[in-house]
Amino acid sequence: MKPFTTDLNLETGILRGAHNHLQRRLSSMEGQYSDRVAYEALLGQGDALVYEVYENVKMPPAPGELYHGTSIVHPGRVGDEYFMTKGHFHQVLETAEVYHCVHGHGYMMMETPHGEWAAEELKPGVVLYVPPQWAHRSINIGNDDLITFFIYPGDAGHDYGTVEAKGFHKLVVDRQGKPTVIDNPRWSAA
Amino acid sequence: MKPFTTDLNLETGILRGAHNHLQRRLSSMEGQYSDRVAYEALLGQGDALVYEVYENVKMPPAPGELYHGTSIVHPGRVGDEYFMTKGHFHQVLETAEVYHCVHGHGYMMMETPHGEWAAEELKPGVVLYVPPQWAHRSINIGNDDLITFFIYPGDAGHDYGTVEAKGFHKLVVDRQGKPTVIDNPRWSAA
Repeated sequence: MKPFTTDLNLETGILRGAHNHLQRRLSSMEGQYSDRVAYEALLGQGDALVYEVYENVKMPPAPGELYHGTSIVHPGRVGDEYFMTKGHFHQVLETAEVYHCVHGHGYMMMETPHGEWAAEELKPGVVLYVPPQWAHRSINIGNDDLITFFIYPGDAGHDYGTVEAKGFHKLVVDRQGKPTVIDNPRWSAA
Repeated sequence: MKPFTTDLNLETGILRGAHNHLQRRLSSMEGQYSDRVAYEALLGQGDALVYEVYENVKMPPAPGELYHGTSIVHPGRVGDEYFMTKGHFHQVLETAEVYHCVHGHGYMMMETPHGEWAAEELKPGVVLYVPPQWAHRSINIGNDDLITFFIYPGDAGHDYGTVEAKGFHKLVVDRQGKPTVIDNPRWSAA
């Protein structure tokens, strides 16, 4: 492989020249929002674009490689929850990820398979280290796009199934206009 | 290890809260500049600060970890060459590095142990992928700080000795006000 460049626009999050451009719509978030009535009602109005990812991933899926790109979570609500990413563990649990927030306002919700959790605020300038073993989900609490630049090892892989089946232990919800962490009433230990 | 954040100032390159802050002065660049007379003359005026690194490195030196930080190359000249970093291979050659240029103007000079070379322009927005095996050196061709955010695997390590002994195959020099790539007259195949 030869060196190559792509170009990151800090206002739009578009990574010009990236290998992949992924779009996730509301229908792919089935079961992830606590308020199922609000979810179905919103889906009835159309399959909204929740987030997008531009990513450089054509390198071999090897431990010494670095996949990288941008995540753009659009602003929106489902009941008192916010638009967010699906969230995932890495398939190779012993792999970290680094996020640099370049635009917008949000939280990264994180948890381990052992039930530890943490939420870190994302705003421009924040560089977040997500250690090995920590599942992670970006949540947009603002009125503008939440944009992060991310990097993870080439062999990490994505495990979306665990979060799809069990959810996260904690939710971030709007309480009188303030983002507030609460227990997930639908969290499943199964 | 728990998740943690540091704060990146895009104008200064300071990564607030970083584990390490490293400063490299002109005296540590002995033998790296082609024009030895200009080097000694400049050193005679004082041991100038050439570049600084803020870095998060307290994670275990394991393949799935990600060390990350900022590099700030100050503006300056040594003869017709520019202020630059020492440049290095990774000790574990099969490890990549990603750079995101956030400020300033420069080049990344790169080469492999097999003699391939590449130079990529660095300006705000450029995301550069440095593949496994490629030595790399940042060169500031502007009048302001050249600031990059970088990420590399925790087990990569640094091999500065090869570049110190042999130099890079190519130099970037000022020719009538334009940065120009030339063969390194002092490059050693030994």
